[in-house]
Amino acid sequence: MTDLVAEALAGRRRALARLLSLVEDDGAEAREALARLCSRTGRAHVIGVTGAPGSGKSTLVAQLAAAYRRRERTVAIVAVDPSSPFSGGALLGDRIRMHGVSADPGVYVRSMASRGSLGGLARSTWDVVQVLDACGYDTILIETVGAGQTEVDIARTAHTTVVIQVPGLGDEVQMLKAGILEIADILVVNKADRQGAEQVAVALAAALDLADASEAGDGAAWRPPILKTVATTGVGVAELADAAARHLAFLRSSGAMEEREQARMAERLRGVARERLLRLVLANAGPAAIEGLVARLAAREIDLYGAVDELLAAAGMDPASGRRAGVAGEPQRRDDRANG
Amino acid sequence: MTDLVAEALAGRRRALARLLSLVEDDGAEAREALARLCSRTGRAHVIGVTGAPGSGKSTLVAQLAAAYRRRERTVAIVAVDPSSPFSGGALLGDRIRMHGVSADPGVYVRSMASRGSLGGLARSTWDVVQVLDACGYDTILIETVGAGQTEVDIARTAHTTVVIQVPGLGDEVQMLKAGILEIADILVVNKADRQGAEQVAVALAAALDLADASEAGDGAAWRPPILKTVATTGVGVAELADAAARHLAFLRSSGAMEEREQARMAERLRGVARERLLRLVLANAGPAAIEGLVARLAAREIDLYGAVDELLAAAGMDPASGRRAGVAGEPQRRDDRANG
Repeated sequence: MTDLVAEALAGRRRALARLLSLVEDDGAEAREALARLCSRTGRAHVIGVTGAPGSGKSTLVAQLAAAYRRRERTVAIVAVDPSSPFSGGALLGDRIRMHGVSADPGVYVRSMASRGSLGGLARSTWDVVQVLDACGYDTILIETVGAGQTEVDIARTAHTTVVIQVPGLGDEVQMLKAGILEIADILVVNKADRQGAEQVAVALAAALDLADASEAGDGAAWRPPILKTVATTGVGVAELADAAARHLAFLRSSGAMEEREQARMAERLRGVARERLLRLVLANAGPAAIEGLVARLAAREIDLYGAVDELLAAAGMDPASGRRAGVAGEPQRRDDRANG
Repeated sequence: MTDLVAEALAGRRRALARLLSLVEDDGAEAREALARLCSRTGRAHVIGVTGAPGSGKSTLVAQLAAAYRRRERTVAIVAVDPSSPFSGGALLGDRIRMHGVSADPGVYVRSMASRGSLGGLARSTWDVVQVLDACGYDTILIETVGAGQTEVDIARTAHTTVVIQVPGLGDEVQMLKAGILEIADILVVNKADRQGAEQVAVALAAALDLADASEAGDGAAWRPPILKTVATTGVGVAELADAAARHLAFLRSSGAMEEREQARMAERLRGVARERLLRLVLANAGPAAIEGLVARLAAREIDLYGAVDELLAAAGMDPASGRRAGVAGEPQRRDDRANG
């Protein structure tokens, strides 16, 4: 275990792969490793890239990796696919090989999948990024499929979020939703050689103007640049790498970096605490109590919130105070919001 | 409050709208209402409809609602948009009006948004469906934008999940991912008058064959039918309503209904418990303790799992046992998985 961390830090790829699998699987060993690596993290520039299926995201990420290599930066690519049950390094092999970066020791590729748990995916993506950061990768590209809330949450683990749009994907209104603009630090119109690319860029600029007008007077704000790329030929990719560097410099000089770090940390702290607490309570209540509650829920004998009260009581907690039942002297309450 | 529930049950739409807002906002009153409505739930057929932006999902849902009305069933439509910050009834007005169902007292439309919280959206969608079910809507259509994990999770609150595919949305491989096939009870190729529709249907059938072969011998299994629709003209919509009815009959006769109910209930129980526990612990630890932990996390002085240990301790819990610190006699452990 100690050796695995030391070997990964020394640049041994097989050790890194095993360490990442360990971290994805969670557990005591993984936590020990992460605790050891903690002080070495915080150095990489983490860039999230998100966009709808068919937007050419994967090709753009591979090209971006090649661009960083030309700038002598090492790159790790974390490809997250919430819809796939498979994790590991192999899936992306062909794609990366195609772009000639796979044999390069300065590029490391890891694909990740949900394994059925949404909260788990955000947690494990975060942990995998910590390991890659500690192991010295200068730039970490997190690629997420789609632009749903999950992908948005995963993109939030990044310093810089790139949102890809393409012409001709139908319902442009969908793509201009406030949510997408809000998370974007850089907007990319990929497949810019296609008809309609200019219209997409114009629509994005108009949407940004609208957003700017509504947050009047925020002088230090970053306005997401709108870049055009053709990922298949590499057109515009160097400019994208430049824009990402400018964004990082902005984050550092404006104080937004610290704010973002604190927000990310608070979010991850809540996420991990939530899962840990549930596991503890389920373990303390025991499987029989849980099965009984589920059966009564399915029979409509009890509602969800009543069932949660009983679950906490079965785990030896006071459902209102969260303290051990019969120990804390607080009056009974059943309003969770009062504690929010 | 008592009046609101009684009025909603009596079919007063304004009372229903207010009750749904209450439930979306969470809190003690909402829980009281849900507890009262609990015994009246479990009667509606809940149908989830999901598909990528541009797949014609909204039009199909409106047409499906009209088809159910012709069969003299009342319909509630819950349109969930994880990327939008707005909830309420108004957004869908135009669309539904267009299809001539808005003036119909047998149709109720509600749009929902994330309000920034992913877990919250699954919770509130579930609760909104419970209210509509208790208020006597025969069919509840849950429409989700996109096909990310969030949408998949929301679709799981349904008995029957309809997944829409369309020709020409680019990367077909993306759409044939195991995840999408796994959640689909019915596959729809919408915009079937377009070029490439037959190829999409053939590809879906081939993917289903592959999936069938891998789960050899499961005699009682449901094979998702592949239907073609043109939502804009209504072609194929009656057949879709028929297929949904057949699926419900299958669930009931095969015993899968009970299984699905238990799985849904267990999932919701875990979801609500997770949020409640976090709120209790954050309240017990207090804001100063949390701010201190976040600052140390951002400074890399502590890792996430160590921070969670400290958070639980600050809330008066033993991080290993989940019991009140110093009360339980269990030995210290730091492996969450052992409790999973």
